[in-house]
Amino acid sequence: MQLYARQNIDFILHEVLKVEELCEDDYFKNHSKETFDLVLDMADEISQKTSLPAFVDSDRNQPQLIDGQVSVHSGVHTFVKTYAEAGMISATFDESFDGQQLPKTVYAASEYIGLSAHNSFMMFTDLANGCANLIATFGTQEQKDQYVTKLLSAEWLSSMCLTEPQAGSSLSDVATKAIPQTDGTYKISGQKVFISAGDHDITPNIIHLVLARIEGAPAGVKGISLFIVPKNRVDDLQVSNDVTSIGIYHKMGQKATPAMHLAFGENDNCVGYLLGEPNQGLTQMFKMMNSARLGVGMTGIACASAAYHHSLKYAKERIQGKRLDENLKLVPSNIIEHPDVRRMLFKQKAIVEGGLAFMIQCYFYIDQTRVNPDRKAYFETLLELLTPVAKTFGAEMGIVSVNQGLQVLGGYGYTEDFPLEQLARDVRICSIYEGTTGIQSLALLGREIFRNDKIALKYWYSEVEETLEKVRKEPKLKIFLDDFEKKLSIFDKVNEHLEKLSKEKDVEIFIKDATTYMELFGLLNVAWQWLKMSEIAELNIHNSDTESKFYLSKIETMKFFFKYELSKVDQLAEILFQTDSLTIFDPNTDHLD
Amino acid sequence: MQLYARQNIDFILHEVLKVEELCEDDYFKNHSKETFDLVLDMADEISQKTSLPAFVDSDRNQPQLIDGQVSVHSGVHTFVKTYAEAGMISATFDESFDGQQLPKTVYAASEYIGLSAHNSFMMFTDLANGCANLIATFGTQEQKDQYVTKLLSAEWLSSMCLTEPQAGSSLSDVATKAIPQTDGTYKISGQKVFISAGDHDITPNIIHLVLARIEGAPAGVKGISLFIVPKNRVDDLQVSNDVTSIGIYHKMGQKATPAMHLAFGENDNCVGYLLGEPNQGLTQMFKMMNSARLGVGMTGIACASAAYHHSLKYAKERIQGKRLDENLKLVPSNIIEHPDVRRMLFKQKAIVEGGLAFMIQCYFYIDQTRVNPDRKAYFETLLELLTPVAKTFGAEMGIVSVNQGLQVLGGYGYTEDFPLEQLARDVRICSIYEGTTGIQSLALLGREIFRNDKIALKYWYSEVEETLEKVRKEPKLKIFLDDFEKKLSIFDKVNEHLEKLSKEKDVEIFIKDATTYMELFGLLNVAWQWLKMSEIAELNIHNSDTESKFYLSKIETMKFFFKYELSKVDQLAEILFQTDSLTIFDPNTDHLD
Repeated sequence: MQLYARQNIDFILHEVLKVEELCEDDYFKNHSKETFDLVLDMADEISQKTSLPAFVDSDRNQPQLIDGQVSVHSGVHTFVKTYAEAGMISATFDESFDGQQLPKTVYAASEYIGLSAHNSFMMFTDLANGCANLIATFGTQEQKDQYVTKLLSAEWLSSMCLTEPQAGSSLSDVATKAIPQTDGTYKISGQKVFISAGDHDITPNIIHLVLARIEGAPAGVKGISLFIVPKNRVDDLQVSNDVTSIGIYHKMGQKATPAMHLAFGENDNCVGYLLGEPNQGLTQMFKMMNSARLGVGMTGIACASAAYHHSLKYAKERIQGKRLDENLKLVPSNIIEHPDVRRMLFKQKAIVEGGLAFMIQCYFYIDQTRVNPDRKAYFETLLELLTPVAKTFGAEMGIVSVNQGLQVLGGYGYTEDFPLEQLARDVRICSIYEGTTGIQSLALLGREIFRNDKIALKYWYSEVEETLEKVRKEPKLKIFLDDFEKKLSIFDKVNEHLEKLSKEKDVEIFIKDATTYMELFGLLNVAWQWLKMSEIAELNIHNSDTESKFYLSKIETMKFFFKYELSKVDQLAEILFQTDSLTIFDPNTDHLD
Repeated sequence: MQLYARQNIDFILHEVLKVEELCEDDYFKNHSKETFDLVLDMADEISQKTSLPAFVDSDRNQPQLIDGQVSVHSGVHTFVKTYAEAGMISATFDESFDGQQLPKTVYAASEYIGLSAHNSFMMFTDLANGCANLIATFGTQEQKDQYVTKLLSAEWLSSMCLTEPQAGSSLSDVATKAIPQTDGTYKISGQKVFISAGDHDITPNIIHLVLARIEGAPAGVKGISLFIVPKNRVDDLQVSNDVTSIGIYHKMGQKATPAMHLAFGENDNCVGYLLGEPNQGLTQMFKMMNSARLGVGMTGIACASAAYHHSLKYAKERIQGKRLDENLKLVPSNIIEHPDVRRMLFKQKAIVEGGLAFMIQCYFYIDQTRVNPDRKAYFETLLELLTPVAKTFGAEMGIVSVNQGLQVLGGYGYTEDFPLEQLARDVRICSIYEGTTGIQSLALLGREIFRNDKIALKYWYSEVEETLEKVRKEPKLKIFLDDFEKKLSIFDKVNEHLEKLSKEKDVEIFIKDATTYMELFGLLNVAWQWLKMSEIAELNIHNSDTESKFYLSKIETMKFFFKYELSKVDQLAEILFQTDSLTIFDPNTDHLD
């Protein structure tokens, strides 16, 4: 069973984004619609052969930590091997690293396919890709030679080690130490928690990228550096590099991926290699974090896609209750005929398709930074702005959407006999991974929106305006255009209000409803994507009967999104206009005591 | 650790509802604040001794079905025995059944305490209470003698058997057969699914209450009768009554309670005893269902209470990030000081306290039907109206609230090291049990609101008006009063609009957004409860410093509910005013294909 709609992916890639135009660029010149199709076909084949068959079993049989070594489900071994051999981990890399120079946009679509089949397996390969990318970008030639191709072929795998027990989301409080040695290496010591894929028995080595503080470095984020810390010594894999697996966190979901508690240098014998410049660790890591954040948003939408397709199938097959037929006789009906079930299915469809378009739009901006070097800053600025929003929309609405899918199945959805309860457990992490929704919202409102004279917001408006110009030519879309423009003008007023607040003394009054702001901006972004898709659908609606059905369905689903979701904007704005101190801490009286 | 606030319960019982006044009635004359306190203390004691210690372990070690017999966690055995011995199962029953004639309002408060400690254990005792109640109400003297005291003392336990594999929520399609025998008994045959506590090894017998169709009965709901079907023959417990445990559904949560798939009469040897009149089964069962529906709402709120208290504790202890202190120096802070964390905590508090007040208000109406025989119909009508709303608010907002609690803990909340992930799994069933949110919403809008010239709605308005009259005397509450009245007038317009639609041809256009209507009405009800509580808080705010803090916190929490939750009413109404056929099934073009 396919847990995504290929027609929908193709529509976004080829009709909305015209991704083939990227191939006009020298870097992508060996690609074409055919090679893109091959990648998507491959993602599907790997999913069907390795991921889907192990989805349930790898949840029921969690990783085990025995004698200091973690073993993971055999399905992960098979998946990683197959995925790497197919060249999928290295697909977006330069040919110099044996990559295919595949556009990120297309790879993201293939990732969506893979994540819909198994959201937990892809963690291993995504981490290998991400770490290889960091080393390829910031590493010395020696480091590149040492690690990159090994990671891309999954000869070794990797992890990113940020969070510490005492610091949580607060990376400025990272305390892991790095003491310089005379040979140019560092002795690493400290503990890291929630390290995904931080130990396993898939590969003979694991390359940890570790945030740590060089002795004497400045306090706060300015004193954090990034280190390559192998599990075993790279010159002799039989020798441990003093990285200890203290424990596995047993989680609500995503059980196939062990979340590790790791100790570095318990015996003062853990060697780390500085990656890039000292004290640039956070900046460097954020390069990887950005891609990881998009990956989490995609995971939310992919889980929602799986839940949608499972619940759609169930609703079409399950007979329950009665409904008047065309002759006004009560006849037994499939539950897909009941309005409330249809509402739950449409809600999922609107989130999945709108969310996917939004996610892929972000990846498309990454490719644009390459093919449009003149406008690199423009696209990077957009990407900085939209990454936390795409992450959060995918996560929060993914959770909502999967739970609607579960609800369609009623009591059966709550049992282990159907995959919905597992998807609901899996997707729940998305609003926490790679920065919680609260943290993403602080980043959006506190850092991105008003900085540099609102440059990012201006770029965003110009992107939106490009869509609106086209939509204005479609009289049938006028009602949606008007609706959207009304919401935009509310957004303007909110920004005007908040900008004033941001310049006043009390930063907490300005920032207190960042999460509400995030929700509002997320809705606007996905509504924008719906307009963009619907304009194209409207143009093509009479092509053929089959296609026309697909395009009509796009318009209907946009209607749903505007009616039930975008309509929340007014209430969210109302909250943002208020300057009360209800949620501001007052040490003298705490109403939450 | 207490997972509820006793002060809050006492406030609702004694200050808001003045529950002691019930003792003026002859039926409750042996009660007083002292006996009420004893019951609540007892509920706490049992929770601390039996429920809380087994909360995690009974989740990790699920019931097992071995050789046709289910065994449950030892903690359930201990809990049921202790709870029954304390007289808790029979507390609300007549003295003639060795009951204490305790008001339902007070028992509900004790149940809230018990459910906050273990939402899954109480299922066993609630079912015994509910079935005993049905038999006491509809049974022959012989049946009463046979079963009631045995159930109330937990010598035997019981289950309610409604759902069938092919019928799900559609009870009119119940197909289990009952064939009359010459001795006045019936032979029962059929299958039932999702039967909570449908088999276990706690008691030597289990009394199933089974919906079945007497041979030759009319089709649909009018041909359903209710039967007493023991697991073992009551005259000889060694003889099986041909009830077979086919399987246990393994669930996402509430794992301590087995959800059984049962077969009756596989060997044509299952004897059932008609309870009450033939073909009255559904009406009779609904008496129990109503109490069960309130129980599910209470479960949602009790899980939310547990999650709130866990996350509040965590937020007070967890140091993360920095905040400006009074001297404008950045100092490490507990996360409870961050506005977004406070927002998540306030949201939970607003749902928990407002939801509890709403739930208990419903139970109070039950007691009013007894002490106000002249106004019995009035209170029963209110109860019919509000039961699906209280069930759904408790369920849906309970789920939202627990997930906010989990989010406060970040990555730790997703691990099994904290109870939040279990609570999130447990509470998820609430929107499905005893009729899904969709079904409750159809019942509310399709059956309750407009029937009998909107009599229920008129009664509801008179209840609300009683509160508003008092609130009008408090100038400080004027802003909230105005806000609420605005929302009420929107609600009026929605009702006017829907009433017109209900009289038009297409019932689906009228009913399609029943779930949206439910959400709107739920918000109004809880806002009403907040006004009711705040008026009393306002009157008492200067009593003493400690008390004043409690009362001030009530006002602040109402502010939160009005600002972030009640403010949704306008958008929900906007949806309800629309008469499009977006979610109506059209066999010719299905946009969900």
